[in-house]
Amino acid sequence: MQPTPSLTQLPAWSELVSAVEQTKPTLNGLYTIEAAGITIDFSGQRCSPAIETATTRLLEQRHFEQQRHALLHGGIVNPTENRAAWHTALRQHMTTPEVTAERERFNAFIRHADTAHRWRHIVHIGIGGSDWGVRLCISAFGYSKLWRTVRFVANIDGHAIESGLADLNPHDTLVVVASKSFTTAETLTNAQRALEWLKAAGVPAPHEQVVAITAKPERAAQWGVPTKNIFTFWDWVGGRFSLWSSVGLTTALSVSSDVIAGMHAGAAAMDHHFESAPLSHNAPVQMALHGIINRNILHIASLNIAPYDSRLAYLVPYIQQLEMESLGKSVDLNGEPVPVATGPVVWGMPGTDAQHTFFQWLHQGTEGAAVDFIVCQQADHRWQEHHQSLLANCLAQREAMLRGKSYEQAYEECLQQGHAPNAAAWLAKHRTHQGGRPNTLIVLPRLSPYHLGALLALYEHKVFVQGLIWGINPFDQWGVEYGKFLASDIIKELQQTTPPCTKHDVSTAYWINKFKNKGA
Amino acid sequence: MQPTPSLTQLPAWSELVSAVEQTKPTLNGLYTIEAAGITIDFSGQRCSPAIETATTRLLEQRHFEQQRHALLHGGIVNPTENRAAWHTALRQHMTTPEVTAERERFNAFIRHADTAHRWRHIVHIGIGGSDWGVRLCISAFGYSKLWRTVRFVANIDGHAIESGLADLNPHDTLVVVASKSFTTAETLTNAQRALEWLKAAGVPAPHEQVVAITAKPERAAQWGVPTKNIFTFWDWVGGRFSLWSSVGLTTALSVSSDVIAGMHAGAAAMDHHFESAPLSHNAPVQMALHGIINRNILHIASLNIAPYDSRLAYLVPYIQQLEMESLGKSVDLNGEPVPVATGPVVWGMPGTDAQHTFFQWLHQGTEGAAVDFIVCQQADHRWQEHHQSLLANCLAQREAMLRGKSYEQAYEECLQQGHAPNAAAWLAKHRTHQGGRPNTLIVLPRLSPYHLGALLALYEHKVFVQGLIWGINPFDQWGVEYGKFLASDIIKELQQTTPPCTKHDVSTAYWINKFKNKGA
Repeated sequence: MQPTPSLTQLPAWSELVSAVEQTKPTLNGLYTIEAAGITIDFSGQRCSPAIETATTRLLEQRHFEQQRHALLHGGIVNPTENRAAWHTALRQHMTTPEVTAERERFNAFIRHADTAHRWRHIVHIGIGGSDWGVRLCISAFGYSKLWRTVRFVANIDGHAIESGLADLNPHDTLVVVASKSFTTAETLTNAQRALEWLKAAGVPAPHEQVVAITAKPERAAQWGVPTKNIFTFWDWVGGRFSLWSSVGLTTALSVSSDVIAGMHAGAAAMDHHFESAPLSHNAPVQMALHGIINRNILHIASLNIAPYDSRLAYLVPYIQQLEMESLGKSVDLNGEPVPVATGPVVWGMPGTDAQHTFFQWLHQGTEGAAVDFIVCQQADHRWQEHHQSLLANCLAQREAMLRGKSYEQAYEECLQQGHAPNAAAWLAKHRTHQGGRPNTLIVLPRLSPYHLGALLALYEHKVFVQGLIWGINPFDQWGVEYGKFLASDIIKELQQTTPPCTKHDVSTAYWINKFKNKGA
Repeated sequence: MQPTPSLTQLPAWSELVSAVEQTKPTLNGLYTIEAAGITIDFSGQRCSPAIETATTRLLEQRHFEQQRHALLHGGIVNPTENRAAWHTALRQHMTTPEVTAERERFNAFIRHADTAHRWRHIVHIGIGGSDWGVRLCISAFGYSKLWRTVRFVANIDGHAIESGLADLNPHDTLVVVASKSFTTAETLTNAQRALEWLKAAGVPAPHEQVVAITAKPERAAQWGVPTKNIFTFWDWVGGRFSLWSSVGLTTALSVSSDVIAGMHAGAAAMDHHFESAPLSHNAPVQMALHGIINRNILHIASLNIAPYDSRLAYLVPYIQQLEMESLGKSVDLNGEPVPVATGPVVWGMPGTDAQHTFFQWLHQGTEGAAVDFIVCQQADHRWQEHHQSLLANCLAQREAMLRGKSYEQAYEECLQQGHAPNAAAWLAKHRTHQGGRPNTLIVLPRLSPYHLGALLALYEHKVFVQGLIWGINPFDQWGVEYGKFLASDIIKELQQTTPPCTKHDVSTAYWINKFKNKGA
């Protein structure tokens, strides 16, 4: 491998730092980009011609165009695992013969289930990348009424599978098991419980009611899933991108195959935008650059995702995984420590709930966060008053973060509320808001599958560009791999199948002993 | 008011800073506190005799004992709103006659509904403090099966009320409207929709099916709620503490009054511990101090809440609101800027889901977070294998954060997996984990109402102590109050009932115009 220069060694980096330091936030600009029907408004970020010049050079110095080409055409962009990250191939209209063939099998399965009115209940078993995307799609498009009951079981906690199976009819339940490796402990243990439940109910052919979605079909077959019920995806599809693969089976069964097709089309449109739009009008590129500016130059430690749409509650964990698993790295491609902070904490909640939960902190806390406001211009319900209020709240909260509230304004307000000048002077200090806090506003025409697909692809490509700038590999996850194996020794100690191990720290040893003796 | 010295002016502060800087994390200590049946393990935090001395002085210099007394006995601890924050009175066994009388009315209401088998469906309408606590209790204790269907409607987004009412039988639905002020826009608008829905279904006395829980009973009466259906709480109960008030009505109807009584008892036991335990063995005090050390001396920007219990998913937004609304302040009681960072970002997700979502970032990101691991020794299901695995995962992830993984260990591992020495040397750099990241382990004997009540009170008092140390008022929320009124002007502009206003920034004006013309 060619050594990758560290970010702070690139000549464009110091240019960018000084360009940002010379740029104040402004209330007088309008800077929007349209991509795949979505409008992204960067007016609340630091923008100037000097920043544009520096960022363009920065991307050149990171060989952005070659890397983007490698990403979108199946090149090896994940060197520590020596593979491609070619999830974009799953959503292209014209794609590889293998992907097309699997799509056909997938659609036939859904069609047969629908025409036979089979599977009144679905238990979807998967965790992380095999879970959040499906939850997101179903709550986005099936928020109100579904013919099929869908339950999600992810956690190893036995209460999860217990509530997941409660009250379902085993004779009309399809169990969907999604695991890229088909070794994920949570997923296989929960699948075992579901199978036992089918058997206990006297279902005649329990394995026939199980579907597996995996990159290791031979393991699923060995587990007992009939070949016709195994849907595969490829080693070059990362778990956190597997929404675009056959993992969408539960989505299609719940809210129709049209949703999958629409999301694919929207994501493909965003891929095309990412590949072809000039850098200064390239939405994922600009989102990535503003994220880097906020994180490394303005030193803002977190990114808040604020979808003003109650149907998008699961967008938060979805993007959280996408960003934090991809960008939670501290060594670069050479294996050297990255000289600056990488991915921020990503957190959030739909507005207006969030306004009553932590917006206090965003407005008046000592640090604040960068905020991505996301809103749909059109609603899918009939109450105009609600939607006007939702839009107004989104715009008003954003304006307050940009503008703040001065001491003078707060003082006036206190006087008007009848406080004496002395008390008003003191109280007003508690009522000021700093302002100048960066944000991005993302406007979807409405929450169609097409626009949700485009939105997810926007964040995916943003994350790729940030990984490139930081010089890290956004496609591996050694911290997760490590975590998967950590527990196995302690499980054995709790089960007393091995003698207590002496390698633990004092506290861990104490708790192993306590949990073992008092009946875990 | 007496001026409050700023934190960095207190002599104990510089003592504490140097004590912490001289204390390295250790794997050889065990430092636990028991409080109200819960064990809190601080072994993963910075502990030393010098830190204990400095923190004791710090609390003295903040007049901790007087302030704690004021909190627990109804003194004015919220000076900017000139009132008490006496939520602890709601859970004491012996309390004020007013509280006792309201408890009796509350229990009689539940008893009548239960004996009559009325209200098969409940629609709970409230937001923020009137929402999260109820969701938390019901998912903690009613995770598997409930006789009554409960729906929550919080967001102003019309999709929320639409899905909240879908498929319910209006003739057997009770609508619970919770709002301290009874002016919360979201709550009153959604309540209006629910009332219309009852009327449209031909319910004979729709207002009889509405219950209000509020500190302004006259406003609820004016809205049309019959007096017998209005439950009150007091001005001295903050919204984010209203779980302890009659807001628990929906909880009691769903999972029984016993849950309320049990939670009260556990919280009261924690109040007693907070009031009487010596500082070095006072759990909320020590949690607060370690939080301050992590935030201001170790400069960790966020606190991750990791309940290893799938029933506690709503604990995260509950604590998020409690901490961030209380501690998201940047001026002290004098109105001067606080010289250090105040409340951290609070975020999280139940483990093991979190392991597959963002633990990568916690292990290998550049900064990491402080983590509160929360786990129950006993489960309430029958699958020992699941619970052992859950406990083992919790302990193992925590150990990995404490211990990390060295380059040498990772290199050995790579060699064992068959990589050539050159490749192993490079790959190992990607597989190291830093370690030494602070955490607290909180162990509940099991998820009983008593222990959940104690857990919530633990966090409440922790937040109070942190507010005291930072010298801020944790009981006001001007940022939220401001936000409630911000939207009203823009709503009028969208409805075109006022001419467009010229005071907006360019981007906000652009979007108001666009949303107005294209049919919001």
